[in-house]
Amino acid sequence: MSRILYSLSGTDISRPFSPHCWKAAMALHHKGLEFDEKLLSFTEIPTVEGGVTKLVPLLRDEDTLVSDSFQIALYLEETYPFAPSLFGGEGGKAMARFVEGYSQSTIHPAISAIALMDIYNMVAPADQAHFRKTREAMFGKPLEEIFPDREGAIAAFPAKLQPLRHMLRSQPFIGGASPLFGDYIVFGALQWLKITTGSVHLPADDPALDWFERCLDLYNGLGRTVA
Amino acid sequence: MSRILYSLSGTDISRPFSPHCWKAAMALHHKGLEFDEKLLSFTEIPTVEGGVTKLVPLLRDEDTLVSDSFQIALYLEETYPFAPSLFGGEGGKAMARFVEGYSQSTIHPAISAIALMDIYNMVAPADQAHFRKTREAMFGKPLEEIFPDREGAIAAFPAKLQPLRHMLRSQPFIGGASPLFGDYIVFGALQWLKITTGSVHLPADDPALDWFERCLDLYNGLGRTVA
Repeated sequence: MSRILYSLSGTDISRPFSPHCWKAAMALHHKGLEFDEKLLSFTEIPTVEGGVTKLVPLLRDEDTLVSDSFQIALYLEETYPFAPSLFGGEGGKAMARFVEGYSQSTIHPAISAIALMDIYNMVAPADQAHFRKTREAMFGKPLEEIFPDREGAIAAFPAKLQPLRHMLRSQPFIGGASPLFGDYIVFGALQWLKITTGSVHLPADDPALDWFERCLDLYNGLGRTVA
Repeated sequence: MSRILYSLSGTDISRPFSPHCWKAAMALHHKGLEFDEKLLSFTEIPTVEGGVTKLVPLLRDEDTLVSDSFQIALYLEETYPFAPSLFGGEGGKAMARFVEGYSQSTIHPAISAIALMDIYNMVAPADQAHFRKTREAMFGKPLEEIFPDREGAIAAFPAKLQPLRHMLRSQPFIGGASPLFGDYIVFGALQWLKITTGSVHLPADDPALDWFERCLDLYNGLGRTVA
C-alpha cells in the first residue's frame, strides 16, 4: 500500500501514545481510508522519507508527504471531498483551530504535569537521553523535579474539561450529532493520558468520560486496541 | 419597525453591558438586519411581551419571539439564509457550542470574580436588592465577601484567554479570516468586562487584545459606542 502513517512509539510498539498521531489516525479512519501505520522512536523519525521532518505524524499518500496533524486533516479534507467531512464546512474548519488552541494550551500542559515521568519510562532507551535533555532545558530543572505534585495534578485535571462538559449539555460530540476532527483533537489528548498513565482520571459519572467512551467506540473500537 | 431586541440596562441606559445581549446585537448586525434595541432593567423584563421570559436578550421579529442568544443566532441563520452566515456550515454551528462552553465555564466566572461589585453598582436601585439576594443565596455569603481578591482576579485573567491566543497564531478570528458567531460569544464576554470595569485588563501587546480591538471595529465601531 502506498498510504503510510508514520507514528510515534515507545519501547513497546503495541502502545503508540502520541496525541497528534492519534488525531491523524482517527482522521484517516473518519475518511474511510486504509493505511499502514509505521511506528518510530523519536530518534528514528529523521531516518525515514529522507529526513523530511523531526516530528510525527507524517503521512505519505502516494507521492505526497504531509506532516502536522492539522495539516494532515486539511489535506485529507481537500483530497477526499466525497468521503465524510472532517470539518463540516469552512466555519467548522476555523473553529477546529479554536478547539486545538484549547487542547494545546489547557489540556496538554495539565496532562504533562501528570504523565511526564510515565512518558519518560515508556520511550525507547535511545530516546530517554534526548527526552531528558530537551525537557530539562525547557524547565531549567532535573526531570524528576519538573512536576513534583503528581497527585495534585490528577486532582486538578477534571476541571480542565469544563468547557467540554458545558458543551455536552447541548450535543453528544464537539462535531454535533456525530464526531468531527475537533473531537479527535481532544480525544487524542485524553488517549495520550490514558495510554501513558493507565487512566483518564475522571469520575465514573462524568459526562466528559461518557464522551471519551463514545470516541473509544468509533471505528470498531480503534481506541480500545491499545490498553 | 417590527424587529425589536430587548436588552439589559443598568441605571444608565446608554451603557448596556449584558454579554448575551451583545452577542445578539452583533449577530443582528452580522446579518445586516435593522432593529430597535429596547433596554430594560432586570425587574422590567417580565413586564414586556406578556411576561414570556425573565431573561434577555429577547428578540421580536414580526410575529416571532426568540429568547437566549444562541437560539437567536440559530433563528437568524435559518430565517435569513441569504445574509452572511453566522456559523459557516453545520460544523461551525456545532463548534460554536464548544466556544460557548469555554466562554461560560472559563471566561464568565473569571469576569464575575473581577466585576461583581461593579455590576451591582451599575444596576438600577430596584434591581440591586434582587441581585444581592440571588448572588448571596448562590454563594452563601454577603455580596461584598464573595470575591475578596479583585486584584488577584485581574492578575489571573489574561491566562484564561490562552486558547484564543493559541488559535490567533493560525488566523485573525475564531471564524477564520472573518468573524462568525463564535467570535461574538467571546467578544460579548470581554465587552461585559470592559463596560462594567472600564478595561479588559489585558497587556498592551497581547494578541487577544488585538483581536478584541478588531471586534470593536466591526459594524462601524458598534462596540465602541459604549465607553
